Amino acid sequence: MAALPSGVLGALDPTSDRAVFRQIADQLREAIDKGQFGEGDKLPSEAELVEHFGVSRMTVRNSFSVLQGEGLVLAEHGKGVFVRPRPPVRRLASDRFARRHRDQGKSAFIVEADAAGSRPEVDSLEVKEERPSQDISARLGSPRRVLARRRRYLLDGRPVEFAVSYLPLDLARNTPIAQPNPGPGGIYARLEELGHRLDHFDEEIRARMPSPHEVKTLQLASGVPVIHLIRTAYDTEGRPVEVCDTVMAADAYVLAYELPAT
Amino acid sequence: MAALPSGVLGALDPTSDRAVFRQIADQLREAIDKGQFGEGDKLPSEAELVEHFGVSRMTVRNSFSVLQGEGLVLAEHGKGVFVRPRPPVRRLASDRFARRHRDQGKSAFIVEADAAGSRPEVDSLEVKEERPSQDISARLGSPRRVLARRRRYLLDGRPVEFAVSYLPLDLARNTPIAQPNPGPGGIYARLEELGHRLDHFDEEIRARMPSPHEVKTLQLASGVPVIHLIRTAYDTEGRPVEVCDTVMAADAYVLAYELPAT
Repeated sequence: MAALPSGVLGALDPTSDRAVFRQIADQLREAIDKGQFGEGDKLPSEAELVEHFGVSRMTVRNSFSVLQGEGLVLAEHGKGVFVRPRPPVRRLASDRFARRHRDQGKSAFIVEADAAGSRPEVDSLEVKEERPSQDISARLGSPRRVLARRRRYLLDGRPVEFAVSYLPLDLARNTPIAQPNPGPGGIYARLEELGHRLDHFDEEIRARMPSPHEVKTLQLASGVPVIHLIRTAYDTEGRPVEVCDTVMAADAYVLAYELPAT
Repeated sequence: MAALPSGVLGALDPTSDRAVFRQIADQLREAIDKGQFGEGDKLPSEAELVEHFGVSRMTVRNSFSVLQGEGLVLAEHGKGVFVRPRPPVRRLASDRFARRHRDQGKSAFIVEADAAGSRPEVDSLEVKEERPSQDISARLGSPRRVLARRRRYLLDGRPVEFAVSYLPLDLARNTPIAQPNPGPGGIYARLEELGHRLDHFDEEIRARMPSPHEVKTLQLASGVPVIHLIRTAYDTEGRPVEVCDTVMAADAYVLAYELPAT
């Protein structure tokens, strides 16, 4: 048997009331946390752990399942179990919708990708008129019809976010906002040109496990939650002019905000 | 066999390449989403689903596991599988650290609980001096020692959040901040009395699956992620005077922020 890295894994505690598969998962997790197994490293094999701990294969498999459920490792069929590489993280700053960015003709996504040195892409773009859901309708002041702009964002080829922007149809119809490419600065720049000077945005943040559809669209690894962000844009008259409903891979994002103390 | 609610569950699609246990999970999820099974409702039993779909018990169990992993249902041993009740949600608003709240002698947690009509509690309070981790040290301007205030928050008896505040020791030692109860308005009120007038807070938000310790501390159901929030308080001289490291049950919170458009 190949030797385990010396000293990384200890013995089981036979007096503990913690199940053996959990004790093994605890030891592996601790070794990962300490960097004894780094990103992309292969964990000891089933056979090695069976031998080391004197347990059944099923017990070792259960330990791996625990770590997979926590998003710490990935199982590659026939190859073994690996420490999940941490993908590059996008940091979304509070000033990402500042007018100076729009004035430079940049959309928020491009601003952030630039800052991160990553290659941004948008795909699966779909623009259509539809009836809003109750929730979207309530947030937008009850328009009967909306323009919906759906798209997926990728960074360096990896899907990180799926977003749908909803705008009251009376405001967006027959404008560049209804075009697949709304032009430099994105739809916020167009809204301002149409006389809806933006005042502020409200953002609501939730986290939850993804639906199967979200797992597929964002190619999420096991144990990776999503951040659900709903943003409402208000113009200077206080009218909500857009709601953007966004689902983000939680392992690809840090959201940053500034709060007033006064 | 007890009749299933009529029309709620359909047939399987034998031509689909989607595994049968996933098809069953899809049907149950859709029925939950539509409210055909409400919060706290019992799903059809294993035996009923075996009969309805003509599949094995193992297949039905795998379907339940999928829904459990998504946080949609809870299995109660010997009783069945139930739609997970959605707990009351705390909405954290951008103005929660506004001075007017402190001036009224209220801490942020009390302000929010008041707003939600919930009964707030704090337990497991621990105050001690310690060496900061590298991350906390970097955020606080590299103090050699910090005062750490650990506590757990409960709403209506349910743990919702575990938080640790770190303050540079030179600033907090021998002040009311080092007392278990720092007095009305909490530590932010005390910091201001000590001459550190607060200017703003930076918050960083991540979401991930909980560690086993966090599952235990927050009594998290299966399939419930945590929101990890790190807040840094700055005084008007730009000095970081506190870092608060918070882990929240993701099913108990909505975070709300306002972003400037200018």
